[in-house]
Parts: sequence; structure tokens; C-alpha cells
Amino acid sequence: MSDKKSTNVVWHQATIDRQMRETMNGHKSAILWFTGLSGSGKSTLAHAVEDKLHKMKCRTFVLDGDNIRHGLCSDLGFSDEDRVENIRRIGEVSKLFIESGVIAMTAFISPFRADRERVRGLVMHGDFIEIYCKASLEVCEQRDVKGLYKKARAGEIKAFTGITSPYEAPENPEIIVETGADSLDKCADQVLDLLRARGILKS
Amino acid sequence: MSDKKSTNVVWHQATIDRQMRETMNGHKSAILWFTGLSGSGKSTLAHAVEDKLHKMKCRTFVLDGDNIRHGLCSDLGFSDEDRVENIRRIGEVSKLFIESGVIAMTAFISPFRADRERVRGLVMHGDFIEIYCKASLEVCEQRDVKGLYKKARAGEIKAFTGITSPYEAPENPEIIVETGADSLDKCADQVLDLLRARGILKS
Repeated sequence: MSDKKSTNVVWHQATIDRQMRETMNGHKSAILWFTGLSGSGKSTLAHAVEDKLHKMKCRTFVLDGDNIRHGLCSDLGFSDEDRVENIRRIGEVSKLFIESGVIAMTAFISPFRADRERVRGLVMHGDFIEIYCKASLEVCEQRDVKGLYKKARAGEIKAFTGITSPYEAPENPEIIVETGADSLDKCADQVLDLLRARGILKS
Repeated sequence: MSDKKSTNVVWHQATIDRQMRETMNGHKSAILWFTGLSGSGKSTLAHAVEDKLHKMKCRTFVLDGDNIRHGLCSDLGFSDEDRVENIRRIGEVSKLFIESGVIAMTAFISPFRADRERVRGLVMHGDFIEIYCKASLEVCEQRDVKGLYKKARAGEIKAFTGITSPYEAPENPEIIVETGADSLDKCADQVLDLLRARGILKS
């Protein structure tokens, strides 16, 4: 008996779940999925929303090209297959962040409706907030912050969304923000209003 | 001019960083990497540590087979190549959780030293806390909670760690916990003591 004593101890598995984390945080978790053309302001808007949420003591995280393409998805290229896998992984990671009680924000062009709907299907109803960053191709190309449109027009980038590859605008996004026309502050406030209306933030 | 007005608005990018999140949380973030044989108690210990940390109002998250194998890594099998990729992705996701201010815990056998060292190399010095859950093969096989050892002995699982595939014990883990002999509570407290000693938790 004595040599087995310690190994017979029952190790009960404790589990802190999403709801307990949300209670501690004082807000619910969700995925805010920003989609739109290159240059439509997705990443900037996501970070502006995060800035406001952080000041309200909310727990947030932004997934974007900067922290995904060189890390988790560094093995992926830009083939159709790889783009699908890229969005799938981002969806799965967002799901983990939801479980962790965080308001996760993703800022990727994510041009294909089917890919976005697949992510929506991964999580519970109401957890996926699709935010369409609406800006015309003309406005985005005029901004061309990263010089990508110029390269795409010169044929240096193949399959560039809006030029040589389609962008499938959301049909029923939770919100459309006019990032091509309105101020950053106005767009960010519209997102916050939506989060209050949906009970993710206390109103 | 007038038609360009709104698009000329400068959208300054705000950035909430790790340090700001750590300050809000009242603790630092880290990866607690639990490694050990199947049945050594990695996942149970990680959840016990999480339970204690949650009661201290720390932000935590556990990555384990339950939330990774069916999600982010559902496309991976158990070939050598896939096992390496599995650990790589877990490392990259842990890195994102560190950035988000969370104490991330991972509970995977992760039998190969090189894979664990690769994850250590992904993050800043001091961010990777390797926790060796030490339990003899005899103890783990005697527990055999999931019945996997029985299957492995019967030849139904090939390349099973400890039976037909090696486990490379850590050479310089940040801590060794005797999960084969000590109580769950004692092991969890040892991990908490380490987090205090390292300044991840306030002492």
C-alpha cells in the first residue's frame, strides 16, 4: 500500500471558464472581424477601438499582418489554398482569445465571403461581429499608404484584391463603417456603440 | 479640394502594448510550458495553477489538447513533421497571449528538447518558464487515466512517448515538480512561488 499512496491521490481538474473570465473583466468577449480593401483603414480602426476599450479597462487584442504573417502563418504563402488556411488559423486563434475572455480584433482584407462565414461558423451565435470597413477602391488607391496599389498596377503583385482579384463585400455585416469618408474617431465610436447595443460592453 | 477632404484625414495608429496591459492586469505575462510524460499531470496541474491565479485576479489561459488539436492544429497528424509544426504553432499562439498580457500555460507532452528550445527562442529571455512534470513511467502507466499506455503496450498506438518513442527530459527547466509523488496543491504552490520569485506575480 504505502508505495502507492501518493500516486493514488485524486487530481481533480479545476476549470476556469469563459464566463468566469468575463465576470472578472466586466465585459463579454467577442471577435471583431474588420474586413475591407487594402488601405480601407482596418488595422488603424481596430487599434483605435482597442485604445478606447483599453481606457475603459477592457481586455483586448488585435491580430493583424504584423503579428500573424511573421509568426503563426509564416509557413504560408499567397496561393488560394494558403489564403484559406491563413484565415482559418486566424479564426481558430480568435476563438481561443474569446475563450480567454478577450475582445479579439482581426484586421485582414479577408476578401472571400466563404472564408469569413467559416469563421462565423466556428464560434457561438453572436460572438462574431463582422465590421465592413467601406472605402471605395478610388479612395484606397489614392491613399496607397504602403505603395501596394502602385505595385499592383505595375503588375509587380499578382492577385491583388480590388485590382486583379475580387473583394466580396459582406452581405449582412453586423456594421458598416464608412472608413473612406468618416473620421477615425467617428468610426471607432460607432463600433463601441454596437458593442454596447449587443451587451458586450455595459451601457 | 472638397471631394478629397475627408480622405486626407490623418488616421494615426494607436497602439496598446504588452506593458500597458501588464500594468492594467497587475502582473506580468509569461508562458508556463508544462512538459512531461502522458499521465504525468501536466494539464491538471496547469488548470490548478490557473485556478489559484484566477482567484488572485490574474489573467490566464491554458492551451492543451482539448482546445488545440480539434481547432488550430486539426489539420495535423502525428508524423514527426506534424508534431514539430504542432509545437511551433502552440509556441506562436503562446507568444500572442504573452503580448496580450496573459499568463499562458501549455500542457503538451512536447517530448523533444529541440522543439521546446525553439519555442524558448521565440520569446524574450525570461518569458519562457519550462516546468518539468516529473513522474516515472511506472507511475504514469499505473495511473493510465486515458487507457493510452494499455493501447501502446498492445501495439495499437505507434510512437507512444515513453514506450516506443523517447521523452527527452529538460536539462535546465526553470522548475521541476514531482507530479508523480507530491500533491496537486503542493505542486501548484511551487509554481506560484516561482512566479513570485521571478517577479511575474507581485510578492
